[in-house]
Amino acid sequence: MSLARKKGMAPGSPVFMGKKRSEHFKMTLIKYDHENIEEKELAEFSADHVTNDEKGVRWFDAIALHDVEKINKFGELYNIHPLVLEDIVNTHQRPKIEDFEDYFFLVFKMLYLDQKNGKIINEQVSVIFKDNMVFSFQEREGDIFEPLRERIRKSKGRIRKVGADYLVYAMLDIVVDNYIEVTQKVSERVEAVEKKLMKAPDSSTLKDIYELKSEIMDIKKAVWPLREVVSRLDRETTDIFDEKTGIYIRDLQDHLFITIESLEGLRDTTMSLLDLYLSSISFKMNDVMKVLTIISTIFIPLTFIAGIYGMNFENMPELKWNYGYFLVLGIMIVVSAIMVMFFKKKKWL
Amino acid sequence: MSLARKKGMAPGSPVFMGKKRSEHFKMTLIKYDHENIEEKELAEFSADHVTNDEKGVRWFDAIALHDVEKINKFGELYNIHPLVLEDIVNTHQRPKIEDFEDYFFLVFKMLYLDQKNGKIINEQVSVIFKDNMVFSFQEREGDIFEPLRERIRKSKGRIRKVGADYLVYAMLDIVVDNYIEVTQKVSERVEAVEKKLMKAPDSSTLKDIYELKSEIMDIKKAVWPLREVVSRLDRETTDIFDEKTGIYIRDLQDHLFITIESLEGLRDTTMSLLDLYLSSISFKMNDVMKVLTIISTIFIPLTFIAGIYGMNFENMPELKWNYGYFLVLGIMIVVSAIMVMFFKKKKWL
Amino acid sequence: MSLARKKGMAPGSPVFMGKKRSEHFKMTLIKYDHENIEEKELAEFSADHVTNDEKGVRWFDAIALHDVEKINKFGELYNIHPLVLEDIVNTHQRPKIEDFEDYFFLVFKMLYLDQKNGKIINEQVSVIFKDNMVFSFQEREGDIFEPLRERIRKSKGRIRKVGADYLVYAMLDIVVDNYIEVTQKVSERVEAVEKKLMKAPDSSTLKDIYELKSEIMDIKKAVWPLREVVSRLDRETTDIFDEKTGIYIRDLQDHLFITIESLEGLRDTTMSLLDLYLSSISFKMNDVMKVLTIISTIFIPLTFIAGIYGMNFENMPELKWNYGYFLVLGIMIVVSAIMVMFFKKKKWL
Amino acid sequence: MSLARKKGMAPGSPVFMGKKRSEHFKMTLIKYDHENIEEKELAEFSADHVTNDEKGVRWFDAIALHDVEKINKFGELYNIHPLVLEDIVNTHQRPKIEDFEDYFFLVFKMLYLDQKNGKIINEQVSVIFKDNMVFSFQEREGDIFEPLRERIRKSKGRIRKVGADYLVYAMLDIVVDNYIEVTQKVSERVEAVEKKLMKAPDSSTLKDIYELKSEIMDIKKAVWPLREVVSRLDRETTDIFDEKTGIYIRDLQDHLFITIESLEGLRDTTMSLLDLYLSSISFKMNDVMKVLTIISTIFIPLTFIAGIYGMNFENMPELKWNYGYFLVLGIMIVVSAIMVMFFKKKKWL
Amino acid sequence: MSLARKKGMAPGSPVFMGKKRSEHFKMTLIKYDHENIEEKELAEFSADHVTNDEKGVRWFDAIALHDVEKINKFGELYNIHPLVLEDIVNTHQRPKIEDFEDYFFLVFKMLYLDQKNGKIINEQVSVIFKDNMVFSFQEREGDIFEPLRERIRKSKGRIRKVGADYLVYAMLDIVVDNYIEVTQKVSERVEAVEKKLMKAPDSSTLKDIYELKSEIMDIKKAVWPLREVVSRLDRETTDIFDEKTGIYIRDLQDHLFITIESLEGLRDTTMSLLDLYLSSISFKMNDVMKVLTIISTIFIPLTFIAGIYGMNFENMPELKWNYGYFLVLGIMIVVSAIMVMFFKKKKWL
Repeated sequence: MSLARKKGMAPGSPVFMGKKRSEHFKMTLIKYDHENIEEKELAEFSADHVTNDEKGVRWFDAIALHDVEKINKFGELYNIHPLVLEDIVNTHQRPKIEDFEDYFFLVFKMLYLDQKNGKIINEQVSVIFKDNMVFSFQEREGDIFEPLRERIRKSKGRIRKVGADYLVYAMLDIVVDNYIEVTQKVSERVEAVEKKLMKAPDSSTLKDIYELKSEIMDIKKAVWPLREVVSRLDRETTDIFDEKTGIYIRDLQDHLFITIESLEGLRDTTMSLLDLYLSSISFKMNDVMKVLTIISTIFIPLTFIAGIYGMNFENMPELKWNYGYFLVLGIMIVVSAIMVMFFKKKKWL
Repeated sequence: MSLARKKGMAPGSPVFMGKKRSEHFKMTLIKYDHENIEEKELAEFSADHVTNDEKGVRWFDAIALHDVEKINKFGELYNIHPLVLEDIVNTHQRPKIEDFEDYFFLVFKMLYLDQKNGKIINEQVSVIFKDNMVFSFQEREGDIFEPLRERIRKSKGRIRKVGADYLVYAMLDIVVDNYIEVTQKVSERVEAVEKKLMKAPDSSTLKDIYELKSEIMDIKKAVWPLREVVSRLDRETTDIFDEKTGIYIRDLQDHLFITIESLEGLRDTTMSLLDLYLSSISFKMNDVMKVLTIISTIFIPLTFIAGIYGMNFENMPELKWNYGYFLVLGIMIVVSAIMVMFFKKKKWL
Repeated sequence: MSLARKKGMAPGSPVFMGKKRSEHFKMTLIKYDHENIEEKELAEFSADHVTNDEKGVRWFDAIALHDVEKINKFGELYNIHPLVLEDIVNTHQRPKIEDFEDYFFLVFKMLYLDQKNGKIINEQVSVIFKDNMVFSFQEREGDIFEPLRERIRKSKGRIRKVGADYLVYAMLDIVVDNYIEVTQKVSERVEAVEKKLMKAPDSSTLKDIYELKSEIMDIKKAVWPLREVVSRLDRETTDIFDEKTGIYIRDLQDHLFITIESLEGLRDTTMSLLDLYLSSISFKMNDVMKVLTIISTIFIPLTFIAGIYGMNFENMPELKWNYGYFLVLGIMIVVSAIMVMFFKKKKWL
Repeated sequence: MSLARKKGMAPGSPVFMGKKRSEHFKMTLIKYDHENIEEKELAEFSADHVTNDEKGVRWFDAIALHDVEKINKFGELYNIHPLVLEDIVNTHQRPKIEDFEDYFFLVFKMLYLDQKNGKIINEQVSVIFKDNMVFSFQEREGDIFEPLRERIRKSKGRIRKVGADYLVYAMLDIVVDNYIEVTQKVSERVEAVEKKLMKAPDSSTLKDIYELKSEIMDIKKAVWPLREVVSRLDRETTDIFDEKTGIYIRDLQDHLFITIESLEGLRDTTMSLLDLYLSSISFKMNDVMKVLTIISTIFIPLTFIAGIYGMNFENMPELKWNYGYFLVLGIMIVVSAIMVMFFKKKKWL
Repeated sequence: MSLARKKGMAPGSPVFMGKKRSEHFKMTLIKYDHENIEEKELAEFSADHVTNDEKGVRWFDAIALHDVEKINKFGELYNIHPLVLEDIVNTHQRPKIEDFEDYFFLVFKMLYLDQKNGKIINEQVSVIFKDNMVFSFQEREGDIFEPLRERIRKSKGRIRKVGADYLVYAMLDIVVDNYIEVTQKVSERVEAVEKKLMKAPDSSTLKDIYELKSEIMDIKKAVWPLREVVSRLDRETTDIFDEKTGIYIRDLQDHLFITIESLEGLRDTTMSLLDLYLSSISFKMNDVMKVLTIISTIFIPLTFIAGIYGMNFENMPELKWNYGYFLVLGIMIVVSAIMVMFFKKKKWL
């Protein structure tokens, strides 16, 4: 966390906070209506695109927030509030939606699985939705919106027939679908740990459980506030979202709800696993101690008997008996047999 | 959970999600008013039945959600929103009710006990309620609505005298009655585990307790959101539910409330059982260790005494005493008697 | 719990659920105004008493719910909703109040101490309040309303001067007073367990604590929903309750509140007792183990010394010393004294 | 708790419930306006003082609730509701405020430290506020209002310039100041226990912690509902409280809030202390066991070696070696040194 | 806590409560508009500055609350309510905002890190905001507002162009930035403890964890109520805050929200660390005990065998065998090998 790096600066001074994850600023513009589609790479925001008289939806998808100058230029061109620019370049935002009268500002966390190592990647996406334009900002190149672009290109689904509001919805829909996928991945891992726990728990199991717990918390931290955001979209923003899109928004809410429920369930399971682990370790330990103690307990009285006849008294009649030794051996066997039987009867063995 | 299988597809594309549990699509139509009743098997949804000018209630009961084409055809014929169709074929829905102006969409979980192995079967039922028609969808053949069909056939109770709203209520009523039955079954199993725990807890008890806890959670997950659904039915839907049905809806709410309270109580009991199990195991273990340690503690000083007279010093006067050996044996008996008495007095034995 | 016994039947079919606790149906009618009072036993509900033109309050107090026919007849005569009849004969209701326009239906749990064994008796009472008539139903004969009947007979307090609404209040007042008494009884038992725990906890203490915890839960389950009921009486029912009775209702609410607070306090105390018990047992155990281990620890090195001089080497000079034996004994005494002092200094002993 | 003693009596029958703590009924009347002040002892409530045409504030401060007759006379003279009288003489009330149109009834708990033994005294005070008269009732003589009387006598602060509403506020203010003092006292005791715990925890520490926890709960039980009372004073009673007094009421709320926060903090600290105590005891125990076990572990193999050469075989060559004995002694020293080093390296010692 | 020191005094009597931390009363006045700026040291509040006809913003920054006379004079000059003066000099306030019609009173906690020892300094700041004047009060000299003064002097950011409301916001903004910094510091310390825990936990780790937990609680106690304050600023005070400042206030809320979330996360992590610590200590202990017990368990049977052949029976044939001794040694080696193998197979070793 490096939120405090800019302490003492005036509010509304955009400073990049987060880890630099891409080389250069890059921007793709997709312009489409239900008939045409046009895609181009742009080097920076320019006054050419500010005009609002074009028809169709324009989606500006920008990479590399650390290039703060580009973001500032964007702010100037489209008259965006400095606090919004500050929020865009600070990747420690809480998912939120803000209504600035002539535009909406939306921040959410994109979660997806790294193809290489299966780790969860957590990337902040900021979206500004203004008239028929959608601006999306993120630091890392490569995202989960490729299927959405494909749908726009191939005109699949409703997306090409409707406005920019549906594009924003479609982005959120993919984000939420990825939450579900990530949750499912974690769920599989929880099951794997559960199986391992039942068979052969070792000291790494504890660490695994804590890692899972912490991952679940991280996902929840991304999902939970998005639910508020979507709920506000449903309640308040009837002026930007088409009534027909409203049904889709409620569908999104359902999916978020199911995800949260799954996460709660996973958290509960993880806690149970922890309890199970601790008690299974403790029982195993107890078992070991019990067996060992029983062995000692059997041999200590026998050793005592041997000790008696190891004494050097001159007058010890048993020592002179011809079968004294074998008698004592016999007594020892009987004593140990009685003890084993006693322990067996008590179910200690 | 396989909610994410369709990631990247456009919203509103129905894809079956769940386990295939029946061979073919099957549909039964029951048409009744307070005088006549007619039952027939239909192969698929057809335009013949779309007309609304018939009197009486028509109940379409469809099996096999995996036949997505049939569901799509249903959607086209009756003008159902694609998101609803998507929800019908995805068996991971949260119980909910949605108002689509000219129809209501209701999803709930049907819980019942498998006759063969006593396991709880959890099956999603989707109901669409449109004018005087009720459509119900589920994947698995065989359900809990047979007594309801019997009541319709034999004209028992109010059901034949009143409208389709009462049919929806009657379905929910049976579902809730089954929740109560399932809860009761779990309650019996909790009591069985409790008895076993008091008599002879073994290592399977822990697993039993966790299984019960998890089953209780599963039932709660089905029951809890249905309460919201029924509460919304009570509050908002006076336009579809007859005022007289309203009383029945409130009765349903009471039953759900009692079920939830029972579940909460069962959960509490299960947690107590867990605590009891852990402490009983720990006490038993402690008892074993205590007895074993006491045995060692008695014999170790005796062995020491024997050790002393096992030493080979040339000048050990006791060794030459005539009754030295018997004196030492006596001392040993006295020492052990004192120790046993001491332990008894301390209530350690 | 046998709520599910009637699964599959039409809603509103009264079936007795609970344990049969009285032989025959019995009914007492008390008719009173501020001048006259009349008491008679009735065999069943009859049309004679349906008329509403009589002055004064009439209280019908019926025993034996398992006689469902009698209840059904009551329903027909007074035009009571079938669901209400079903609730009356099902003794697993949650305390509640329902407004049926021309009558009120009230269910609550009567808790009182069994004179013989001091156990808590939990009995469901259903009350229907219609015009100037009050109908009360319960399964078991013998109740807590005797002092109320006495007050009516002897014209003590307000009861004879005011209407049937005050009678309903007076019944609730006695019920709540009994809750307080029962809570107090449990409180005394908690204190007794606490004292026992401080002096000499044994294995039955744990069971006692769990029983108390479960009793507290049961009382809470009766008290908590009644608070809602009384709160609704206060808020909504100004049309049936005289304004002057309103003050009494609020007094009732206070008493319920105090009871709930006491119960919460008792639950907290019980949980503390459990913790105290577990840690006291564990500490006692630890103490035992510590003392036993210290005894072993002192004797094991001594035994080792004895073992050395029990060796049979030919050349062991000490063995030939004249006072070797006494020297070794002295060394043993010194070693054990040092160990005891060390343990004392470390406060282990 | 003896709330149930009056079970079966008509509501509104005042019966003293609590412990008798003063000999006789006593009452002080303080009559003041901003110019004059008059104090006198009264033997009982009398019709002389009922008249309302006097100017200035009159404060009747009565001791000894067990003299129920005096309270009943008060009720008759001033036309107070029987339920209020019942609440005054029952010292198990929950702090509350009630509006009876022509008077307000206020109950709260006065907490203060006993000068002798430092224990917390919990005394119920009932206040009736009617026109320009304030009646206060409590069982025990001696209270915390002396500084308030002094302020009235010496005309310090606002109190003599303003009405009876400010007097009620001033009483509450002193009560809340005493809550803060008592909380602070408990806080000091918590710190003392903490220090003791860090230095030398003994078995009384556990009891101390539970006592503190229970005291904190008791204070909270007095403070928490008073906050509701004060909040209602702020919200609803603008007709009795001067607007200028309103600011003081909000100040009171702040103080109550701070007290509650302190109590919450203390409760948390106490719980932490409990955890710390339990783990410190457990660690100390573990340490003892570890050292003891290590001692045994070192000597048991040595004793075994001694045992070998204590065997009486005829052919044991080592026994005949000249330096066999010293060799074995050397081996024993080496073995024990290796073991000690091993344990040190493993950080077990 | 010394809140109770003034018990018995009239409300609204300012008494300094807290620790004296500065020598003399000191006050700086900064007067600025967007063109001019003037800074001067003042010895006390004087009538010269009461006039309101000056343009621009005036910020009076006063040090040393213990000089209560100065504060009283301020109260007289500017007509401030005595309760406000009391709150200013009592440093145990809960963060709050109060609206006194012609001025606002704001209390909050300033948290910052001591440059010398890295400890968290917690200092109460009271702010009165009246017309275009801002009065700030604190006990300790030296604060976190220096960057703000610099911005005013150098005319950086919006601050010189806008009114006194923005100055109040800017103060809160710096305070919140410091909360974030302090939280981050604590977060780093949590990570350090985590690393230490994974490598080599010792007895100080427990104390570290409890200290961290307590620090997190302290920060939360400052941050949590400020969120309420800022939320009230956002909702209610549109008359004092410019609409444009409103956006900044909401930004502040976001930052507070993120801080609270971080604190919650840290608290969770700390609790996990505690659990991890306790179980790691317990596992380590168990491991030690297991190894030691295994050593004893191996040697006790061997010692028993040695004990047998140490017996002095006259007729013990083995003793006369030529290789009896070596046979027994061999048996001992075999027995111990079998035991080690058995323990290894059981994974106890």
